[in-house]
Amino acid sequence: MKTVCFGEIMLRLSPPAGMRFAQAQSLDTVYGGSEANVAVSLAQLGLSPTFISRVPDNELGRAALGALSQFGVSTDGCIFGGDRLGLYFLEHGAGLRSSKILYDRQHSGMATLCPGMINWHQVLADTGWLHWSGITPALSQDTADAVLEALQVASEMKIRISCDMNYREKLWQYGKTPADILPQLIGLTHVLLGDVNAFELCLGIRKRDEKSLLAQVFQQFPQLDHVAMTSRQGISASHNAYRGILFDGRRVYQSAEYELADMVDRIGGGDAFMAGLIFGLQKMPDQPQEIIDFAVAAAALKHYIKGDFNLTSAQEVRSLMSGNTGGRVNR
Amino acid sequence: MKTVCFGEIMLRLSPPAGMRFAQAQSLDTVYGGSEANVAVSLAQLGLSPTFISRVPDNELGRAALGALSQFGVSTDGCIFGGDRLGLYFLEHGAGLRSSKILYDRQHSGMATLCPGMINWHQVLADTGWLHWSGITPALSQDTADAVLEALQVASEMKIRISCDMNYREKLWQYGKTPADILPQLIGLTHVLLGDVNAFELCLGIRKRDEKSLLAQVFQQFPQLDHVAMTSRQGISASHNAYRGILFDGRRVYQSAEYELADMVDRIGGGDAFMAGLIFGLQKMPDQPQEIIDFAVAAAALKHYIKGDFNLTSAQEVRSLMSGNTGGRVNR
Amino acid sequence: MKTVCFGEIMLRLSPPAGMRFAQAQSLDTVYGGSEANVAVSLAQLGLSPTFISRVPDNELGRAALGALSQFGVSTDGCIFGGDRLGLYFLEHGAGLRSSKILYDRQHSGMATLCPGMINWHQVLADTGWLHWSGITPALSQDTADAVLEALQVASEMKIRISCDMNYREKLWQYGKTPADILPQLIGLTHVLLGDVNAFELCLGIRKRDEKSLLAQVFQQFPQLDHVAMTSRQGISASHNAYRGILFDGRRVYQSAEYELADMVDRIGGGDAFMAGLIFGLQKMPDQPQEIIDFAVAAAALKHYIKGDFNLTSAQEVRSLMSGNTGGRVNR
Amino acid sequence: MKTVCFGEIMLRLSPPAGMRFAQAQSLDTVYGGSEANVAVSLAQLGLSPTFISRVPDNELGRAALGALSQFGVSTDGCIFGGDRLGLYFLEHGAGLRSSKILYDRQHSGMATLCPGMINWHQVLADTGWLHWSGITPALSQDTADAVLEALQVASEMKIRISCDMNYREKLWQYGKTPADILPQLIGLTHVLLGDVNAFELCLGIRKRDEKSLLAQVFQQFPQLDHVAMTSRQGISASHNAYRGILFDGRRVYQSAEYELADMVDRIGGGDAFMAGLIFGLQKMPDQPQEIIDFAVAAAALKHYIKGDFNLTSAQEVRSLMSGNTGGRVNR
Amino acid sequence: MKTVCFGEIMLRLSPPAGMRFAQAQSLDTVYGGSEANVAVSLAQLGLSPTFISRVPDNELGRAALGALSQFGVSTDGCIFGGDRLGLYFLEHGAGLRSSKILYDRQHSGMATLCPGMINWHQVLADTGWLHWSGITPALSQDTADAVLEALQVASEMKIRISCDMNYREKLWQYGKTPADILPQLIGLTHVLLGDVNAFELCLGIRKRDEKSLLAQVFQQFPQLDHVAMTSRQGISASHNAYRGILFDGRRVYQSAEYELADMVDRIGGGDAFMAGLIFGLQKMPDQPQEIIDFAVAAAALKHYIKGDFNLTSAQEVRSLMSGNTGGRVNR
Amino acid sequence: MKTVCFGEIMLRLSPPAGMRFAQAQSLDTVYGGSEANVAVSLAQLGLSPTFISRVPDNELGRAALGALSQFGVSTDGCIFGGDRLGLYFLEHGAGLRSSKILYDRQHSGMATLCPGMINWHQVLADTGWLHWSGITPALSQDTADAVLEALQVASEMKIRISCDMNYREKLWQYGKTPADILPQLIGLTHVLLGDVNAFELCLGIRKRDEKSLLAQVFQQFPQLDHVAMTSRQGISASHNAYRGILFDGRRVYQSAEYELADMVDRIGGGDAFMAGLIFGLQKMPDQPQEIIDFAVAAAALKHYIKGDFNLTSAQEVRSLMSGNTGGRVNR
Repeated sequence: MKTVCFGEIMLRLSPPAGMRFAQAQSLDTVYGGSEANVAVSLAQLGLSPTFISRVPDNELGRAALGALSQFGVSTDGCIFGGDRLGLYFLEHGAGLRSSKILYDRQHSGMATLCPGMINWHQVLADTGWLHWSGITPALSQDTADAVLEALQVASEMKIRISCDMNYREKLWQYGKTPADILPQLIGLTHVLLGDVNAFELCLGIRKRDEKSLLAQVFQQFPQLDHVAMTSRQGISASHNAYRGILFDGRRVYQSAEYELADMVDRIGGGDAFMAGLIFGLQKMPDQPQEIIDFAVAAAALKHYIKGDFNLTSAQEVRSLMSGNTGGRVNR
Repeated sequence: MKTVCFGEIMLRLSPPAGMRFAQAQSLDTVYGGSEANVAVSLAQLGLSPTFISRVPDNELGRAALGALSQFGVSTDGCIFGGDRLGLYFLEHGAGLRSSKILYDRQHSGMATLCPGMINWHQVLADTGWLHWSGITPALSQDTADAVLEALQVASEMKIRISCDMNYREKLWQYGKTPADILPQLIGLTHVLLGDVNAFELCLGIRKRDEKSLLAQVFQQFPQLDHVAMTSRQGISASHNAYRGILFDGRRVYQSAEYELADMVDRIGGGDAFMAGLIFGLQKMPDQPQEIIDFAVAAAALKHYIKGDFNLTSAQEVRSLMSGNTGGRVNR
Repeated sequence: MKTVCFGEIMLRLSPPAGMRFAQAQSLDTVYGGSEANVAVSLAQLGLSPTFISRVPDNELGRAALGALSQFGVSTDGCIFGGDRLGLYFLEHGAGLRSSKILYDRQHSGMATLCPGMINWHQVLADTGWLHWSGITPALSQDTADAVLEALQVASEMKIRISCDMNYREKLWQYGKTPADILPQLIGLTHVLLGDVNAFELCLGIRKRDEKSLLAQVFQQFPQLDHVAMTSRQGISASHNAYRGILFDGRRVYQSAEYELADMVDRIGGGDAFMAGLIFGLQKMPDQPQEIIDFAVAAAALKHYIKGDFNLTSAQEVRSLMSGNTGGRVNR
Repeated sequence: MKTVCFGEIMLRLSPPAGMRFAQAQSLDTVYGGSEANVAVSLAQLGLSPTFISRVPDNELGRAALGALSQFGVSTDGCIFGGDRLGLYFLEHGAGLRSSKILYDRQHSGMATLCPGMINWHQVLADTGWLHWSGITPALSQDTADAVLEALQVASEMKIRISCDMNYREKLWQYGKTPADILPQLIGLTHVLLGDVNAFELCLGIRKRDEKSLLAQVFQQFPQLDHVAMTSRQGISASHNAYRGILFDGRRVYQSAEYELADMVDRIGGGDAFMAGLIFGLQKMPDQPQEIIDFAVAAAALKHYIKGDFNLTSAQEVRSLMSGNTGGRVNR
Repeated sequence: MKTVCFGEIMLRLSPPAGMRFAQAQSLDTVYGGSEANVAVSLAQLGLSPTFISRVPDNELGRAALGALSQFGVSTDGCIFGGDRLGLYFLEHGAGLRSSKILYDRQHSGMATLCPGMINWHQVLADTGWLHWSGITPALSQDTADAVLEALQVASEMKIRISCDMNYREKLWQYGKTPADILPQLIGLTHVLLGDVNAFELCLGIRKRDEKSLLAQVFQQFPQLDHVAMTSRQGISASHNAYRGILFDGRRVYQSAEYELADMVDRIGGGDAFMAGLIFGLQKMPDQPQEIIDFAVAAAALKHYIKGDFNLTSAQEVRSLMSGNTGGRVNR
Repeated sequence: MKTVCFGEIMLRLSPPAGMRFAQAQSLDTVYGGSEANVAVSLAQLGLSPTFISRVPDNELGRAALGALSQFGVSTDGCIFGGDRLGLYFLEHGAGLRSSKILYDRQHSGMATLCPGMINWHQVLADTGWLHWSGITPALSQDTADAVLEALQVASEMKIRISCDMNYREKLWQYGKTPADILPQLIGLTHVLLGDVNAFELCLGIRKRDEKSLLAQVFQQFPQLDHVAMTSRQGISASHNAYRGILFDGRRVYQSAEYELADMVDRIGGGDAFMAGLIFGLQKMPDQPQEIIDFAVAAAALKHYIKGDFNLTSAQEVRSLMSGNTGGRVNR
């Protein structure tokens, strides 16, 4: 049974380490995007993910799909269309200088996707899981409708659905707020990932303690079976602390907190968590503590790999969980 | 007296030499665009050019202006606005493999420029020359109107006007053809550069021999004082032959033809010619043969410099004109 | 119907342009190998190729397969095993300095492949074409036997078989000569590619004129339906001339000869030809002149792309065939 | 009113990160120098600085000025002359390995500057502030005299003068000590920056506590209106602690201390402080606490940007002052 | 008197910083290997070391020797032979992601060395010290025998002998264990370096406290005059703590412990220690505390230099010992 | 018997290919200089050369010597002194754009060498050949005197002496002309290399035909035994034609002329010729035609290797002489 991830893949462009945009004479390039990152992560962990998107029929669109194939993701169901590939420019921060992202993703193939373009019954054949994120409905009314269309077909086909709320304030420019759009979509979802901000700004749920917060989410969306939450403390641009919690409607499971010193690339950390969560729920459904520990360890490792993708095997995640904090050379 | 160049500046992104888009892990970046290239060239030749454009108020917009300042062009009159900086992706060809350009310039600050945004009376104070190209009116009706506005103010102010027709078929997507738009603008212009294609497709003028062609242009636009034409023979992506001719209404002046073997970067060759022409008409107005020879030699040297800009001094152009074909090391 | 290519994929390591091994502080890396190159080429041309090999179960083995997936080749049938991935070090020549290859492929996963390791009946299900080359039987008696095994199964399954003789004198170190081994394997093959050297040294066939030579090959291997031959004239390391001929048992079809000046990377040129030949025989079987012209044009374009792989579409090959020798920028 | 910075700009050459001079096959290049760094910083903060120097009339001299123009500094008043551009080689340290600087600036255009070469009355027209540093009078008797000349003209013109003492023991090779030369120059200065070493070795002032030290400086140079001092604690080559204090003749204002972990490039930190101080004294003259906090925050950010220049906006400095320690991605 | 180091030199290939093997498009290359690293370190410290090995007679073998010559090591006694140069692929870890080494050194010139190939009487003329490590006898029975041969000649010639046990579990594939082979060789050695693991797994010695452990080693090998031990605590892949102890048969000398934060390259740290130890025993034989402090400080500095080699002078080691922890720029 | 080369070694800094000085963000670095280049060439050809110079006792001076050691040249006799290492900046030309060299070698260790600093009797022990060039006496009266000192000692010791006149107009700034200085030095020389310019401008010898020119040189300097001359025709910066002639007092031997298309790096071509000449005169003294052919072939190959050094073996030179013009891949 396939796991399908639906969303946008973009070309990411970054000045060399330590440089600002105004200085760079070349830009390092990788392909990435929240749902694509989840798909690549799942492939590295050993699942057989499929990525569904709409990319322009030009060299950049095809190269984006090639990058997914390279790392084990099927892109057979992607459709070609639109004028451009979404881009984002990332200036890596360091120490006291924050990282900076300039989105240039408007008018892309995915941002101009409309309902009816993707044949969901065909795409979702043999599929056991569908993953989407709050970024897609933030792009336009059409893409919000396209997500709804996908979720409705998946629901008919009894496919399990997960969502990472991924709240990005700079998106959501088409006149609707997350609170207008997301509740209906989350109402069709079984596994939800968010953070304090997302729960408040997208769902209007605000609680002092994390457990009450998650319980409130469950109450509001009774079809959910798991809600997870991550928390990142930003000590500097090179040093964060990271942890997660998982609620299955009965109990809250807390992960250990990782000190992420000397980070290499923090983009895609949340997507690595999401992939760990999906992997855990599929492979060890009865071990919620193990699941949250696995997801957080996977996310922790992402911070030490360049690019959006978490090129980490399940064995490497387990090695970190068992206390190998990286200090040895694996000869 | 300033020379003002009006047009778009873009970020250009190219895979490393010999690589295709699908292979690249980084992209070399420079800033460029036809009218900006003319401005930089003029600064290298020793004039004091000013570039007028509209760029977004973000890191990329400001970096683009910084790149012009670095090479001696004033950008004080530029305005900030719009969502994005225009981009173009360039895959350098080699030998039998053609170069390839993907434009991603729609919705840029310049593409969304409207008449009234730029205070032309102020911009054109102390100005002796205004240069525009056929690219700007190709972007949208608004930019076409903005060019007209600029030319009308310049005409009132008795400023000399030059135009490089720069026909690009992939632009012109807003429902008008060059033939609908360009004649009115060229009717306000004094110095015109084109090639066989441009004269035919934009002005409907088609003649077998070059002299008749230029004479016909003169007849159609009697306010012109000079028409120039360049001709490029593409032996391979690495090897061209290049020459130009100049008509002053009385006589046709032919340049020598240069063999451009082992080319480094042919983008901006025509802009280097245009700059040579403007420089010649300002600095040696009574020497038409010298002017066309200078412009073609300047263009020839551009093919051996990376990036859009022709970083070549007037002395280097004259050295080539006097027969130094590059074979000596200048110690 | 799949096209299956069987052979070794290696990591190729090259000093930066213009540098010798003794100078390099980094080595550019790509993955390649004759049969893998054919597979990637076929994928770019639009077929659905599968690559079959044995690679070590480590990061390099997996990365090699990822590189094939990135460019559209299925690697599902590959098996993991052996201690190391084959390597080759390539010093690019220039002008009067020849290119140099150091093979370091002994003891690799593929060099230690034995008959019985690959389930050929399964691999060749739904397969219409099997491609092998003279490199594999040069590695060891075991790999020679493994090729024989594959060809025998393919023959039973009525699969069409092609071979590029690819004579490399430095291989063949296990005590057998090509003349000992290849005739039996070519006796099971339908489409054969060689050059003057290969025909003489591997098959003992030596003729003055090319047509007689090919006729003699046909006579010796009556099951063949097509024999092709390429000829490369080495003017310098940066400049070759290249042409090919095809014999279908009745007539000889000659391609045009291409001047390959300013070459970027000549490795994989013959594999690009082979892929063009397979593509032509599958897609335009009744147009032998078109087939040989297509194969040579595909090979010509390869010389202008870095790496072993010919990342060229059928449309680009046809554009060259129709006379576009690269001199224009495709905007 | 312009702010004029007077001093030397040099080409800086550094081995790639982690490499020593003996290993490098390329050197990263930027242009920099204490007073030039102050000028660039001021331009980024929003002032209109002018840089005055003498550079050779060759490609490197002109490129150095271009680098200043790129970042918004006017170089119109620079003069050309001398045989060479000053150079310095910088080996970036890391952890327990110290950074290392090899100066190669003798005999440069600026080191051979003599009084009378620069027309100070013209340069200082419309100028409100002149900045110099202790490096220039360390180069030769002539440059010391040239500084004196500049300060005398500025004093006549009632221009405010600032100085960063910048004590470098390896300079001062022409037979005079700082104590011979600096007091006369500082006697014409209004704003002075130093550290414990500089006050002792250049002015002979040594005190246990910082406040008494600054009071003593004030007593000795009664025309001063502000004295500032920075203190850097070197935990390792990658980790410093940094703070500053400001004395206005009445009160001492202490900044917070910043932990500078994971530094990218510490060269130019003091110049960034100096620029923050000048900016603060011009833009918020009545807020001494704000001024010292701003200057230290600006300096802190410099440590996370490659090159000598502090490419940081006033808004980014204020964001750090308000507690954003870099841990967030600015999307 | 020469110091001779005997062992293998390999080509090391590493993805760029932050990248995994699957991502890299180029590999940074250096030459290294435990005993070669010791030799280079000794040359930097001021001794005249000689390296003895067997490398293939091809470009890579010669380049490896050139790299040693570049840094002051004599390679005149090396012999040419074998099919290939040993390689190792190193993926640098970061933070929580461990570094990873793939050895590809089987079948190399050194791995196929046999007794009798090297003329030890000639090689060891004028030699005062011979250094070997536990890596060489781990490669094959032949190389173990070759080490024995060398040690026996050296013993006859009254040459002092040192050994770094360098236990690598992945080596030792030829059917013998370290316990089978090493005791005889260590029985001819005077200075021994190990760690807790090596003493237990190679010599079967296991003790709770370090002093008893070293005493036990002395008891077992009474010809030893010094035993040293290093201890590395792996806080993360970027942060270790490092210290050493030295036992001269009477007293144990403890070094300070260094915090190695923000490490650049930890490969070769132990070899830098070994070189410091040899240097100390030769240059300050009566100062055991100084020796162990010097060796640990030398090792600490290695962690901040790219590549296997410790390009550090004795003066730099002494500067660290005297408390300069890298926080200053040496101008 | 050693061959000793005496002269300056410098750090050479070049913008990346296709870039001008004003654009570069890094400079590629190699070490080179006419006499050092000869030494490295000789080592590659199989001789045992020694290089004698004076370099500063800093990281750059030591790195320069390391670069020579890396390629087989002994630097034991070099002395340390002076303030700086000579530098030269090289902008590689291409096609019609000439290469450009900025010397920055004044005040270097070698430029401030005085007679008496080098112990020539010791340096020249066991020496059979001493090579110098016209660059050293061009630097200062002291260096001219130092050359004279060396030649006088060598003459006493009956050492054979060669000279490459290497006329560089930009040097010779100390008030003397080559005609003032060189004749005395050439009067002690046995083998002389020049070109038409050098013979005219340094020796005042001007003849129409080459044979008469060489005969005239012989007449003027009767102690000479061989005079050689090279001729380079500069078709473009990327394409030269190159040939040489040798006169032994009796007959003139002409080499073939090589077309040097697609050149990589022409600096050091003449030094490669000089090394070929010295090698030939030592190894095949009775074969003058072979000598001139060898020297020109060696020089031709240099043009295809980055850097100043000709990293070419005698076997590779002979392969070119026998007609292998680079078109084959040596597998």
